[in-house]
Amino acid sequence: MYQHARENWWSNSSVNRDLNIARALWWENNTLHLLDQTQLPEKEIVLHIRDVPHLIEAIKALSIRGAPALGIAGAYGTVLAASEWEGSTAPPDWDQLQQKVGPLISARPTAVNLGWAVNRMIARGRETGPTTSGNAYRLLEQEAVAIHREDEERCKKIGRNGAELLADSGQVITHCNTGALATGGIGTALGVIYSAVMHGKSVRVYADETRPLLQGARLTAWELQRAGIPVTVMSDGMGAALMQQEPINCVIVGADRIANNGDTANKIGTYHLAIAAQAHNVPFYVAAPTSTIDTTIESGNDIPIEIRGEEEVLSWREIQTAPENVPAYAPAFDVTPAAYIAAIITDIGIAYPPFNFHTFLQNAN
Amino acid sequence: MYQHARENWWSNSSVNRDLNIARALWWENNTLHLLDQTQLPEKEIVLHIRDVPHLIEAIKALSIRGAPALGIAGAYGTVLAASEWEGSTAPPDWDQLQQKVGPLISARPTAVNLGWAVNRMIARGRETGPTTSGNAYRLLEQEAVAIHREDEERCKKIGRNGAELLADSGQVITHCNTGALATGGIGTALGVIYSAVMHGKSVRVYADETRPLLQGARLTAWELQRAGIPVTVMSDGMGAALMQQEPINCVIVGADRIANNGDTANKIGTYHLAIAAQAHNVPFYVAAPTSTIDTTIESGNDIPIEIRGEEEVLSWREIQTAPENVPAYAPAFDVTPAAYIAAIITDIGIAYPPFNFHTFLQNAN
Repeated sequence: MYQHARENWWSNSSVNRDLNIARALWWENNTLHLLDQTQLPEKEIVLHIRDVPHLIEAIKALSIRGAPALGIAGAYGTVLAASEWEGSTAPPDWDQLQQKVGPLISARPTAVNLGWAVNRMIARGRETGPTTSGNAYRLLEQEAVAIHREDEERCKKIGRNGAELLADSGQVITHCNTGALATGGIGTALGVIYSAVMHGKSVRVYADETRPLLQGARLTAWELQRAGIPVTVMSDGMGAALMQQEPINCVIVGADRIANNGDTANKIGTYHLAIAAQAHNVPFYVAAPTSTIDTTIESGNDIPIEIRGEEEVLSWREIQTAPENVPAYAPAFDVTPAAYIAAIITDIGIAYPPFNFHTFLQNAN
Repeated sequence: MYQHARENWWSNSSVNRDLNIARALWWENNTLHLLDQTQLPEKEIVLHIRDVPHLIEAIKALSIRGAPALGIAGAYGTVLAASEWEGSTAPPDWDQLQQKVGPLISARPTAVNLGWAVNRMIARGRETGPTTSGNAYRLLEQEAVAIHREDEERCKKIGRNGAELLADSGQVITHCNTGALATGGIGTALGVIYSAVMHGKSVRVYADETRPLLQGARLTAWELQRAGIPVTVMSDGMGAALMQQEPINCVIVGADRIANNGDTANKIGTYHLAIAAQAHNVPFYVAAPTSTIDTTIESGNDIPIEIRGEEEVLSWREIQTAPENVPAYAPAFDVTPAAYIAAIITDIGIAYPPFNFHTFLQNAN
């Protein structure tokens, strides 16, 4: 059911194009720098975050989003929480730090990566047991950078593994934003596209605008344009017509959670697109780190679907689109059954149907 | 392949609920009254149109839209063009009138109904040959009212024929606006829903917001709410997830043009929805007057697809969503192959697959 990526295509690829790929966040001078995604694509504003309350504010406002990017923000946030420790010879008070980062963990309740990263940071500190706060601060900073680098590496591997599935020259449809703005590296589904282009393939991307929050029109179009990859925006109902009219090589999307059998939860609209792809014999690929795979759930039936505020569907930024008091259907995600998925591209290799991730992960270890 | 609507369900139906159904346009005191649809749902503003230039302006601004409604507006526009004739004993100058309505015919080049109605009005005048302008004016007024009433009747018949396909109690998905705001009566796809409810059936409607111009969120939600029919708005990519989660009895949409074999051109997003319906075994119905059927074209391959301005996809009202200079895919319509359509409901009966409209129309005559 799976195959680890062949190295030959990659190493034989002679072209290595540098792309101008965006960064969602970076650490410099004891400060977390965040590109404010709520202002994109109109303005490129960088937020300089020096304390936890401002980071929580930025997370709640969606200035930073995307599960992997939120994890990294949580790690750097833990360093910010310890900023008074810098250069101090007093012993570090880990309990106090743990308390200080509590509100950060719950800044977005459904973002498990936030809690995962913060807890890993503090566990690492306690385990290592530095005697001075100054040393503890440096240790935390190193750990946050490590978390960031690991995500960057995972993106590279996903990109590398997936790139060989793309034609030397072709057109691809994607949904939502799964690129540099959502991760600490080049992204997942967009990472595959970046990788292919970096190694000489020619890719044109059709980006679903991705209602209601328009991550496709706002963020994916922005980062691909910046990287010099041709991108065309379309409304979410246009994918089927496009596949009828134009040769499309594949659809490639990210994932929020993947069940053992391959059923995949992702941004609302993904399933709709997967059905249209199957009707046109267009392969439908999912790209995600292995951390997204949840082998404790057997199928998509066990994935709970978060329902968002109705106003997201009923308005367009400040402008109300529907009449007052009309209700909306507002699921954040949908579940694409594994039967619609041609391959799931991970950092450790490509899984093919029939999916069984217990086995896939075991074979990889 | 077809069946004329059975009368028994309808005549046996004991309930006859009056619904508060909107009107797109009406004629009163030598004035054409138009509900300004560009202002919906925020404001209900009625435009009082007394001359052709103002009508052209309203048509170009999309204050009135929908093929049948535009035909009726063209008919009343011809009366407005002849307004100086009222009460005059001079002989009518039909050539002069024909010249005056030229710009009206081309106010929206793709709206064939405009030209059809204006030409019918003038042909009727020339044939009848009234000797005074005053009589000619009254004749034109009568003809315009007749065109309006005929459309109203056609909507009623479509509604009546289609209503029996709906469950006594159920949930229906629709796309775009095909109701009172698009026609001179109760509409086509929405007409079926109104008819069913008027005769005691209970229908909950899920309305696609219908990007890019949001006719679903703005117009369908407005007119159904006004009529007291429960309506929920959703983004265009949510239909498949909804059908996975909720029992949906059918999808019902309108049509812009139907080929002899049943392939149907309709608002972009319709085909995507049809594929999702088939994947969930939800019957997909098209409701349209027989005037929409074009037996001169054998299949949907011969239907040209109008491409709209890219800014419609890249923005909403004044707000730009995508970065500057990013292109958009912006087809106005898509073509749903007949294989996805369970039935086509017309004013003369219901057609079932395999569709052959030469035969259907012949048998009806």
